[in-house]
Amino acid sequence: MRAEILSVGTELLLGQIVDTNAAYLARVLSDLGVSVYRRVTVGDNMDRLLAALRSALESSDLVITIGGLGPTMDDITRDGLALAFDDTLHLNDDIAEGLRKFFTKRGMPVLESNLRQAMVPTDGRAIENPNGTAPGLLFEKGGKVGIALPGPPNEFIPMVDNFVAPYLRRKTGNIGTIRSKVLRIAGVGESLVEEIVKDLMFDANPSVAPYAKVGEVHLRVTAKSDTVEEADALIEERAKLIYERLGSAIYAEGDDPIEKAVVKLLAERSETLSTAESCTGGLLSQRITDISGSSTVFMGGAVVYSNAAKTDLVGVPAEMIEAHGAVSAEVAQALAEGVRKRFGTTYGVGITGVAGPDGGTPQKPVGLVYISVASPDGCEVDEVNYIGGRATVRLRASQTALNMLRLRILKSKI
Amino acid sequence: MRAEILSVGTELLLGQIVDTNAAYLARVLSDLGVSVYRRVTVGDNMDRLLAALRSALESSDLVITIGGLGPTMDDITRDGLALAFDDTLHLNDDIAEGLRKFFTKRGMPVLESNLRQAMVPTDGRAIENPNGTAPGLLFEKGGKVGIALPGPPNEFIPMVDNFVAPYLRRKTGNIGTIRSKVLRIAGVGESLVEEIVKDLMFDANPSVAPYAKVGEVHLRVTAKSDTVEEADALIEERAKLIYERLGSAIYAEGDDPIEKAVVKLLAERSETLSTAESCTGGLLSQRITDISGSSTVFMGGAVVYSNAAKTDLVGVPAEMIEAHGAVSAEVAQALAEGVRKRFGTTYGVGITGVAGPDGGTPQKPVGLVYISVASPDGCEVDEVNYIGGRATVRLRASQTALNMLRLRILKSKI
Repeated sequence: MRAEILSVGTELLLGQIVDTNAAYLARVLSDLGVSVYRRVTVGDNMDRLLAALRSALESSDLVITIGGLGPTMDDITRDGLALAFDDTLHLNDDIAEGLRKFFTKRGMPVLESNLRQAMVPTDGRAIENPNGTAPGLLFEKGGKVGIALPGPPNEFIPMVDNFVAPYLRRKTGNIGTIRSKVLRIAGVGESLVEEIVKDLMFDANPSVAPYAKVGEVHLRVTAKSDTVEEADALIEERAKLIYERLGSAIYAEGDDPIEKAVVKLLAERSETLSTAESCTGGLLSQRITDISGSSTVFMGGAVVYSNAAKTDLVGVPAEMIEAHGAVSAEVAQALAEGVRKRFGTTYGVGITGVAGPDGGTPQKPVGLVYISVASPDGCEVDEVNYIGGRATVRLRASQTALNMLRLRILKSKI
Repeated sequence: MRAEILSVGTELLLGQIVDTNAAYLARVLSDLGVSVYRRVTVGDNMDRLLAALRSALESSDLVITIGGLGPTMDDITRDGLALAFDDTLHLNDDIAEGLRKFFTKRGMPVLESNLRQAMVPTDGRAIENPNGTAPGLLFEKGGKVGIALPGPPNEFIPMVDNFVAPYLRRKTGNIGTIRSKVLRIAGVGESLVEEIVKDLMFDANPSVAPYAKVGEVHLRVTAKSDTVEEADALIEERAKLIYERLGSAIYAEGDDPIEKAVVKLLAERSETLSTAESCTGGLLSQRITDISGSSTVFMGGAVVYSNAAKTDLVGVPAEMIEAHGAVSAEVAQALAEGVRKRFGTTYGVGITGVAGPDGGTPQKPVGLVYISVASPDGCEVDEVNYIGGRATVRLRASQTALNMLRLRILKSKI
């Protein structure tokens, strides 16, 4: 099966946004064994959209459009696909009713233009969008398929995962399959990971490829075979070898971030957590509570930006801050122990540092962060020096804290 | 002048890298007043490259290719352009000599394939690449222009800035410039914004286009003119009209997110803020502390996930939680007032809700969030119902809170 990806939006041609959606979709298609023939971007212009759609349908079996499904006059993808597929659009009453309810509930007027989002193809159907008002659309004619997806990534990505991928898996049947698994590694740098699995990287099937992320490394193991079972068996055999070499540095498989691994570990052990954050400003607790079900293990956190808050909320002695400075191993430890006591949790995490761009000194430069984990077994503190801007320093600090916590939980007895 | 951007590389079709080069080039071209007609991405395949080049040269005066200029067999852009421009390639002795020196100096063998990078078009010329071994190439024939640039961004971007931009400025003479400004709007939906500025959207110069984001809408005002000054004047005149209609719903211009607008407002007034978050779990404080300099206005926050934490840290009466439930207008208000008192700040924000996917009931469904802002003038609470997954509900709740806070600050006397 051959596909073309068509991004629609003048903002893309003006370079105002980077098309990360298209790259995401391309990766998913490639994993499914669907060959992407071409990617095209056109503006909000019907002639050019239609020319691009017709050209795509000449060379490919499948065209997936991104964007242009909103309610405004600029949003022409719906009409363009109907023309290219020689189909008509009609109002779907259920979707229209859902839209009316949506706006009424919010006390907003139901504009006629909003109902454009309830127009669906006569020979096709709507694709559910749980995160927005514009459903996706499926067009089918003469063996050719058109799929229209909305542009906002928080709507687009779940629809790729939950509709496009399963749909294509069914559609393509068993034409030989490419399967892959990602092993997620924290606490070991990319070069060292590569050193450790170098010999495996020469093999073509299964292949092993490292990808460096912020504060972690992903190893993608990919296998091709006639059947899913065979491909999965190849992957498992290779994964076993990698586990033997990297052990607990592998914190999860697949898409689960490290905060999910931590929440899962705590839930399995019926243990609890609280956090006291200075320079990360709530990023750590935000990441943890991003995980559904975290409320059973995460009791709460203190974002203690000012020195007074460190003392009042978490009980860091004012004299300690005076003597060692707010950015110090002592204060990090007092934060972790204080918040653990305050919330009565199994573990407490404390973070204090200089996120920058201001506030650095020769003794305590931007990027210096102290991270502490308090547990029933005692308290440990790490001093780390990150390079990068404010956002990077904060992200890396939250990442290190999560990995320290994870390793601490693994080490402790139940 | 009309241009097409053609990215070449199988890795782009596989989604292994995101094409930030194309977005960068698109922005530069748009600023120069060159209209980008289309963007296309093809793999390392001569038939498809050639088809894309010929199609581009039919509709555009200029085609700029990105990537495929390396020394390997995969690198086919050079040959493709020569075919499309009906030109021949020959070895440029100076460039070949430079390559030989480059490799010899590094103790590396000079492979025959490396010398492919010294091949230049007979009717065109090479474009200097100070950061790599592959020079760019310029093809010209029959009024059409082809420019080939290498793919590594550290080579590509300087060549766009130092060659492409000046070349096109000379080539186009003074045919004008495109300037644009973004007005960022919160608290008003996309359809309503469009309703309000609909008449302006019919004008071509300056043009006005809305873009929906999570919890906000951006209006882009774009003007073409002979000079930057004239274009900016057109934009300012139009922006003035939009300000008259949308007033304080416009929270900023350009790239600044709403949290930056809030931090700026607070800093201007020497006022302070604290937060008490339940369902957003620190996302609000994380967004605020993401802004450099926020430490002067943000004192701290409490992430109060458990009921006990709501009572212990922020002083929400246990009986109130018992009577109304943790997700209630009463508790939101108690959070805002409690944290304001606790930290002694000008404003306090409280958020409590059901982020999902679990925990919803018929009375209190997933997406129901209460947001409260306490200030010297009193306390207000909003009840909102968001659709979407956990991440979307949390993001929208933090967005609403920031906008409520912003409007409250604007209304209050200094």
